[in-house]
Amino acid sequence: MFYHVKELQYNAKPEKPDAVYARKLQEILGGQFGEISVMIQYLFQGWNCRADQKYRDMLLDIGTEEIAHVEMLSTMIAQLLDNAPVKEQEEAAQDPIIRAAMGGMNVQHAIVSGLGAKPDDSMGYPWTARYTVASGNLLADFRANLNAESQGRLQAVRLYEMTEDRGVRDMLSFLIARDTMHQNQWLAAISELEARDGKVVPGTFNRQQEKQEVSYSFMNCSKGTDSAEGRWAKGPSMDGQGQFEYIENPEPMGQIPILAPGPIYIHGTMPSGQTPPPSQF
Amino acid sequence: MFYHVKELQYNAKPEKPDAVYARKLQEILGGQFGEISVMIQYLFQGWNCRADQKYRDMLLDIGTEEIAHVEMLSTMIAQLLDNAPVKEQEEAAQDPIIRAAMGGMNVQHAIVSGLGAKPDDSMGYPWTARYTVASGNLLADFRANLNAESQGRLQAVRLYEMTEDRGVRDMLSFLIARDTMHQNQWLAAISELEARDGKVVPGTFNRQQEKQEVSYSFMNCSKGTDSAEGRWAKGPSMDGQGQFEYIENPEPMGQIPILAPGPIYIHGTMPSGQTPPPSQF
Amino acid sequence: MFYHVKELQYNAKPEKPDAVYARKLQEILGGQFGEISVMIQYLFQGWNCRADQKYRDMLLDIGTEEIAHVEMLSTMIAQLLDNAPVKEQEEAAQDPIIRAAMGGMNVQHAIVSGLGAKPDDSMGYPWTARYTVASGNLLADFRANLNAESQGRLQAVRLYEMTEDRGVRDMLSFLIARDTMHQNQWLAAISELEARDGKVVPGTFNRQQEKQEVSYSFMNCSKGTDSAEGRWAKGPSMDGQGQFEYIENPEPMGQIPILAPGPIYIHGTMPSGQTPPPSQF
Amino acid sequence: MFYHVKELQYNAKPEKPDAVYARKLQEILGGQFGEISVMIQYLFQGWNCRADQKYRDMLLDIGTEEIAHVEMLSTMIAQLLDNAPVKEQEEAAQDPIIRAAMGGMNVQHAIVSGLGAKPDDSMGYPWTARYTVASGNLLADFRANLNAESQGRLQAVRLYEMTEDRGVRDMLSFLIARDTMHQNQWLAAISELEARDGKVVPGTFNRQQEKQEVSYSFMNCSKGTDSAEGRWAKGPSMDGQGQFEYIENPEPMGQIPILAPGPIYIHGTMPSGQTPPPSQF
Amino acid sequence: MFYHVKELQYNAKPEKPDAVYARKLQEILGGQFGEISVMIQYLFQGWNCRADQKYRDMLLDIGTEEIAHVEMLSTMIAQLLDNAPVKEQEEAAQDPIIRAAMGGMNVQHAIVSGLGAKPDDSMGYPWTARYTVASGNLLADFRANLNAESQGRLQAVRLYEMTEDRGVRDMLSFLIARDTMHQNQWLAAISELEARDGKVVPGTFNRQQEKQEVSYSFMNCSKGTDSAEGRWAKGPSMDGQGQFEYIENPEPMGQIPILAPGPIYIHGTMPSGQTPPPSQF
Amino acid sequence: MFYHVKELQYNAKPEKPDAVYARKLQEILGGQFGEISVMIQYLFQGWNCRADQKYRDMLLDIGTEEIAHVEMLSTMIAQLLDNAPVKEQEEAAQDPIIRAAMGGMNVQHAIVSGLGAKPDDSMGYPWTARYTVASGNLLADFRANLNAESQGRLQAVRLYEMTEDRGVRDMLSFLIARDTMHQNQWLAAISELEARDGKVVPGTFNRQQEKQEVSYSFMNCSKGTDSAEGRWAKGPSMDGQGQFEYIENPEPMGQIPILAPGPIYIHGTMPSGQTPPPSQF
Repeated sequence: MFYHVKELQYNAKPEKPDAVYARKLQEILGGQFGEISVMIQYLFQGWNCRADQKYRDMLLDIGTEEIAHVEMLSTMIAQLLDNAPVKEQEEAAQDPIIRAAMGGMNVQHAIVSGLGAKPDDSMGYPWTARYTVASGNLLADFRANLNAESQGRLQAVRLYEMTEDRGVRDMLSFLIARDTMHQNQWLAAISELEARDGKVVPGTFNRQQEKQEVSYSFMNCSKGTDSAEGRWAKGPSMDGQGQFEYIENPEPMGQIPILAPGPIYIHGTMPSGQTPPPSQF
Repeated sequence: MFYHVKELQYNAKPEKPDAVYARKLQEILGGQFGEISVMIQYLFQGWNCRADQKYRDMLLDIGTEEIAHVEMLSTMIAQLLDNAPVKEQEEAAQDPIIRAAMGGMNVQHAIVSGLGAKPDDSMGYPWTARYTVASGNLLADFRANLNAESQGRLQAVRLYEMTEDRGVRDMLSFLIARDTMHQNQWLAAISELEARDGKVVPGTFNRQQEKQEVSYSFMNCSKGTDSAEGRWAKGPSMDGQGQFEYIENPEPMGQIPILAPGPIYIHGTMPSGQTPPPSQF
Repeated sequence: MFYHVKELQYNAKPEKPDAVYARKLQEILGGQFGEISVMIQYLFQGWNCRADQKYRDMLLDIGTEEIAHVEMLSTMIAQLLDNAPVKEQEEAAQDPIIRAAMGGMNVQHAIVSGLGAKPDDSMGYPWTARYTVASGNLLADFRANLNAESQGRLQAVRLYEMTEDRGVRDMLSFLIARDTMHQNQWLAAISELEARDGKVVPGTFNRQQEKQEVSYSFMNCSKGTDSAEGRWAKGPSMDGQGQFEYIENPEPMGQIPILAPGPIYIHGTMPSGQTPPPSQF
Repeated sequence: MFYHVKELQYNAKPEKPDAVYARKLQEILGGQFGEISVMIQYLFQGWNCRADQKYRDMLLDIGTEEIAHVEMLSTMIAQLLDNAPVKEQEEAAQDPIIRAAMGGMNVQHAIVSGLGAKPDDSMGYPWTARYTVASGNLLADFRANLNAESQGRLQAVRLYEMTEDRGVRDMLSFLIARDTMHQNQWLAAISELEARDGKVVPGTFNRQQEKQEVSYSFMNCSKGTDSAEGRWAKGPSMDGQGQFEYIENPEPMGQIPILAPGPIYIHGTMPSGQTPPPSQF
Repeated sequence: MFYHVKELQYNAKPEKPDAVYARKLQEILGGQFGEISVMIQYLFQGWNCRADQKYRDMLLDIGTEEIAHVEMLSTMIAQLLDNAPVKEQEEAAQDPIIRAAMGGMNVQHAIVSGLGAKPDDSMGYPWTARYTVASGNLLADFRANLNAESQGRLQAVRLYEMTEDRGVRDMLSFLIARDTMHQNQWLAAISELEARDGKVVPGTFNRQQEKQEVSYSFMNCSKGTDSAEGRWAKGPSMDGQGQFEYIENPEPMGQIPILAPGPIYIHGTMPSGQTPPPSQF
Repeated sequence: MFYHVKELQYNAKPEKPDAVYARKLQEILGGQFGEISVMIQYLFQGWNCRADQKYRDMLLDIGTEEIAHVEMLSTMIAQLLDNAPVKEQEEAAQDPIIRAAMGGMNVQHAIVSGLGAKPDDSMGYPWTARYTVASGNLLADFRANLNAESQGRLQAVRLYEMTEDRGVRDMLSFLIARDTMHQNQWLAAISELEARDGKVVPGTFNRQQEKQEVSYSFMNCSKGTDSAEGRWAKGPSMDGQGQFEYIENPEPMGQIPILAPGPIYIHGTMPSGQTPPPSQF
């Protein structure tokens, strides 16, 4: 169960409104790697957790914190939209700055949400649950989380660069710092689980059952061998169980597929000379 | 530019048709972490790559290989659908196996694709480009790739468990082995980049500008301290630049937000006693 | 069955083209509460209606009228797009007004629809059937309809404020008036059904089967008691069957959930010390 | 800012697993009117609220409670999935109950989420932010909320009818009771705002500016006059400002639209005899 | 403007309910090539039409007819759902036919729409406006329409094969016949426009401006020359302006792309040895 | 299986960056008729092909070529984004041209993809697999392909008109020429299949089973008879098996639908006077 207190986790006060920037800030609220994504992702990973309670508890801690980040961003965006110049009076239309601002803002901020934040990204695309990752395998999921915090911090930094507003930057400096922590946190949790369960997910699959001839081969499917220069092309594999091998000219190992004609009730195209009789019904 | 050869990269021949399983196999073809996702993801990361050529080349190598995996899975699914029992003749309807098959299969395999594979997942949800990740920051993106291969191998293993068909298992044993390689490959590429650019993405942001007081604090937003037991709660941080700290009772640090009433032309709800005059136009 | 006459239900003639405004007007054509939404919603409610014929007939009357509204808006948008300045010749590029206009228009109006209306909203997001509501319970659905007409009139009014074009405003004054009628209409139909079936949907569920201890309790899950001031916090309940009660400090009433480990064939993360054996197959 | 306690708001313990029912229960978790929808909807309405603090506080109270409902449903679904029969061993395939279960369950519960809940609906469609309503006009939005609780209670009641499991029914009896309260709550808040701002949303638009001739006319666009029997067809309008009028044969009032040919650079189809010259560039 | 009459365009009466088939029939109601798609597509093409009035009129004729088809299918589906077996009482659960039906039906037909049709496809995916095509170029669009009627008739025929219900087959025999007409209709309209504007869309682009060396070359990007056997590989081109040519070994004609490093404020990965300085802000 | 060479199929080098145009160009990369659509469409048609090998081979040839087109467009877009002006420094904000450019660009190009192409359309909507068509009936699908190439060439031509950049135009002149070929190619393949299987898809359905009375009737559902002037209204039908007939006043041929009340466990609205008893459970 959850409780709310009225204070924000950290300040969210812009120096002045900026409707165009409000639109951009939507990305880290409702985008693929926005705060709604990590909120839902961590909460579902926690609720579905069948492993040790410390993982469940940790996931719900951070998931709960992310709700507060959603709150901060929504509050910031609403203030950036204060008195947004949505009226196209004749005079305003003469002012190219204002018209450009109107062109650049998310017009739904005026028409739909009445100068409020929306659970959408910076192009107005709605947040979708297909962004979330929760597989029941924590090592897999913590890698998803590390990625989410990496993409999220990268986007927050880019948004920091795009504004001079000290209030916005203050809030972003907090979110960026939390992303630093969260990258560190997932790195720590990953190192714990890799030590316990091995580096290849899932660690419980019997390795005899995979086609081990190709488990450590780099296949150079593209002409030229620049790709031979990387760590992935030679030396011991990262899981300590094999040697990387560079296949310069990978050959196909499978059949040339030829599909059987479909049954008549499907009415697909038959091979020539095999015209099917009319339907029997 | 690309070229095709008729042979598959590896065998894709089921022992016998199984329309219900065909539907399940769609997950690793057109799902969030299916082969279409990694194909598009690696190709776009390669095409957009502004870093060293070896990364671009490596990305296009593996992206090109993934097209072959899409091909194998599509071919397998089409064969699993051979002669799918879509006709509900009276007799068939009495046979619970056949009715169950008709219920459990993806009915679009019969109505829409005419017993062919679809670029959808196992619940019939179409593949969407919002699954792809390509940020221009390779360390971030390689973490996305490591996650994709972890989720992908996990799903392939689960699908392996769900069938006894030796032909399907043979193909999956190949894909699972390639996912072993690809997890190793991204781990290798990540270790190269972390050594060069640091562990926190993006490494180029001036750390003075983030709110460093909270860069290594674990905030226990959930009652109880099970979460204090993990590596993330104490000791040196994973990036080597701080010490983890456990905040047992995190307090809010921000304002209580109070938003200003909206301008009259938005026609939102005003605070009581502030009824706006009718519109001036 | 349906018939068409060539005249529009009401005038749809702008004074002059305005491609940026055309984009905004898309919201009430193809947005969440646009005319396509109410058209499909009322028609499906009518076609699925299992109650009195007067409701079915009324729903099909208004659903049929909404097709005419879709027609008016499409026609208006096409005219607003007449000669849209899509060519970026050098001279035009010098004119900030024109460039701003080009930035602000829906670029698909030029590239995709060839200066025609699209069944999308003002951010270019396509209309989706998940906007529609038709549950088979008319009281529930008429509340959905009342909401749709409330949101729809609000958006039409905002769009009225955003233009000075007398032709556009003339058309909007008609649509706004119809929304006045339609809000009144659903209020009337709701009052009929509430008198007959009660205020709580669905009225047919046996109230003994719900957890009646909490059927009239307001739970103050947020610190502070501002919420105690409303009508919802004290006095008789609106359905006349209980008394509102204000729970200042709501306590959890359920268990602390602990999930069982998953079966081995799922390959999820196991609790420590319970490492599963390799797969048996 | 938010805090979590480990206990659920109410019990969520099924008597026994039922993977097919788990899939159905997803509807009120991640469907159009599921708990995620009301959670996000109330929180965003609260965060964006520019009216009296009592409304903001009330919205955040109930939004916070809804997070607990999401938690209860997720926990219930995970338990319903315990040991789901995903393996298709030969023997199992002979058992029609097991095959039916495999056909009827959400196969992503096995392949993707590893026997955990997903933020999707009962057909596997992911939750999307386009379900949420937050317009800045509270009367409009409270009508949306009343609808959401009406649809939500209706669906919960239907799901109650679909199971005999006493644990599931116990949890649903709690959620149904809360929906009773929440319908009452929104009815109460609506009556407050209607008394203050009038029944037609938005109340601030100058009624002189709408086409008042049609503000209270019911238009019978469908042959037959069953629709004349309702409260909406005669008598005083519900807003007390007019009289309902029944237009038996509504006539078009607008022009026959004729669009001008498009400019040549659009390359649309020209009227016959107006073949455009080749492009000038 | 539009009018409705109560009679359906043609009979829609099943012999008996069949909830599983109801789900399948959704495909031609709300699927990619269902009746909603052609309804919206033809209406928008008509409303946006800037060419001769006969095309506009014809498009609105057929678009109006399609609304009646949507009505017939919705009515049929509602009747197929009469008394759908949604209750899982213990006895019922023992009956494999009933369980199969419960597994195979669209569970939202019970939980969400209350035994009514939905604007979704057979996998429960909602109709989306991205299915519609209306470009302003009628030759292009009539080809889209011909395709829609081809796919639509194919799906209707497959659904005809999947049932023995004489009422359903009677309705389908009507829809299939209309699709015969509509394929003929678009073929006729296409032949008119091809005669007038040429076979290559758009006919107004100056052919000097395209890279004419490759305007009639078939490029054999796949090893093997089976593709040389078709009409497309030799002989005069279909537009009468060139000769097909078969390029057995197509060579790349473009550059090897090398992208410039991104500006520092993007924080992408730099090439090695070009580590950027910390941000200046 | 597939192979890659580093050279592009044709040049993709803009004269200079243009971030606003980059956004527009996304339409033919990731839009409904962009290169990703045809790539996936042709490959799936090929992989699912159950007809003659020459069709499979041809489909894979052209599908493979389309991957190269995706590559060219992605490369072009990345270069158009070089040094995009995303920083809103005070000085820049004074320059209306720059602000307008910022308003008009896809802001995710800066925030999300780090100046790389995205698999989205020009309004930022992600590519979705529901764009693809692959039915197993090649005549139907080749009509889909002809439409795709018609819409695609039309959009490419419009984009050609929207720029003066010689590098962009050079690349587009190549793509436009290929679309000329591909329209010719599908016309050729269609003429082959129509000669073999007849003009009405599917040719294998027994024409006795369709309602032949309406197989060649044009129904004038819209008042006025402009539509009588077309080829579709009189003369022999295009399939050579009937005569077009013009029905000036089409009459309904079906029943007035009246649905039975739903079962009590659905809790829908009952007809008046038929109030159901409380639930029995």
